[in-house]
Amino acid sequence: MITVALPKGALLEESIRLFQQIGLDFSALNDPNNRSLQIVDPTNTARALLVRALDVPVYVEYGQAQMGIVGYDVLREKGPKVADLEDLGFGYCRLSVAVKADSGYQRSLDLPAHARVASKFVHCAREHFHELDLPVEIVSLYGSVELGPITGMSEAIVDLVSTGRTLRENGLVEIERLFESTAHLIANPLSYRLNRGNIAHYCQAIRETLQTQPETAVVS
Amino acid sequence: MITVALPKGALLEESIRLFQQIGLDFSALNDPNNRSLQIVDPTNTARALLVRALDVPVYVEYGQAQMGIVGYDVLREKGPKVADLEDLGFGYCRLSVAVKADSGYQRSLDLPAHARVASKFVHCAREHFHELDLPVEIVSLYGSVELGPITGMSEAIVDLVSTGRTLRENGLVEIERLFESTAHLIANPLSYRLNRGNIAHYCQAIRETLQTQPETAVVS
Repeated sequence: MITVALPKGALLEESIRLFQQIGLDFSALNDPNNRSLQIVDPTNTARALLVRALDVPVYVEYGQAQMGIVGYDVLREKGPKVADLEDLGFGYCRLSVAVKADSGYQRSLDLPAHARVASKFVHCAREHFHELDLPVEIVSLYGSVELGPITGMSEAIVDLVSTGRTLRENGLVEIERLFESTAHLIANPLSYRLNRGNIAHYCQAIRETLQTQPETAVVS
Repeated sequence: MITVALPKGALLEESIRLFQQIGLDFSALNDPNNRSLQIVDPTNTARALLVRALDVPVYVEYGQAQMGIVGYDVLREKGPKVADLEDLGFGYCRLSVAVKADSGYQRSLDLPAHARVASKFVHCAREHFHELDLPVEIVSLYGSVELGPITGMSEAIVDLVSTGRTLRENGLVEIERLFESTAHLIANPLSYRLNRGNIAHYCQAIRETLQTQPETAVVS
């Protein structure tokens, strides 16, 4: 039996829909009364694990799940040893640098050396400023990164932006994009190579589903 | 004006109650319609920041908040440079090692060398097994750590336990306690030393409130 790791949160609904299209029904995970983190589809051919987005690549890397769906942002930040098979097109967002609207900074390089940058994406943020050769202090936060500039703790943030509403509500503006992110299909490299649980069949079915669909509109 | 960092989640309600007892009303943060992460109390003498528990010590360390309330577990895991002023008695839980009930392991040292241990408390877990001189592989997870042993990814977990319900529901048993945790009052060391925002007054008021209360029952 193949096991699939699915991410809680924004990508879950589309992920469930995708697997329904290839004949695997994990919709029980969407039931608000569901407390189970592990379910088997009604045809008894596949299992799904419901885990935090950041944990999806961990279960896939260790082989407890042969396949998984996760945002490209998580792959960039964590660099797990998984096979990145397909861009699934949904769940668009971007990792961006943002500053206070009244700060006058128009790009990353306008920031003063040794500025503070708050982020949940510590690795990506560090890499970005390293490439610019601008020394900054990265402040690692777990949530509500927009409070960094508001409280004066940091001059900038590096955070995910989708509609931009949170930025606007907090008087912040996006000044640079590090990369865009969508949901990706990943697999355990060894499982994929050895075709464990007939993983090749499911990947092929997903590819065909993607080809028959109109391309997901990318909001930019 | 003094700024206080308060943690979202389990400790929030008691934290708000404590500050009410010393005359600062942050109860607006409890309003389900509240979207604001920053409020000023009605007397206009203090501000509260509502942040993730793990971020409380960050705001206090950088001095954007002079005081904060956070679980002792977070202080142990992150080791922030803050003054740990008072044990507030509420929010009891413990950081424990747990294994599958049918595994037969009765203490940490029963685990095989190079066992895998899943945890959100990577630093504390590593320290615990290092002190026992037992080499293990710590698997860092962000949520639902109990899935580790269930899926076979890890032999054990190191996780917070309060009532023990989650463990029981997942067929796990607690075999060792690393430490017990309650909410602590913390302060920025420099702010405390220089009595910024009259921080000494508030700390003293909190100490007096604690002394006049019957000691919080510690569930064990």
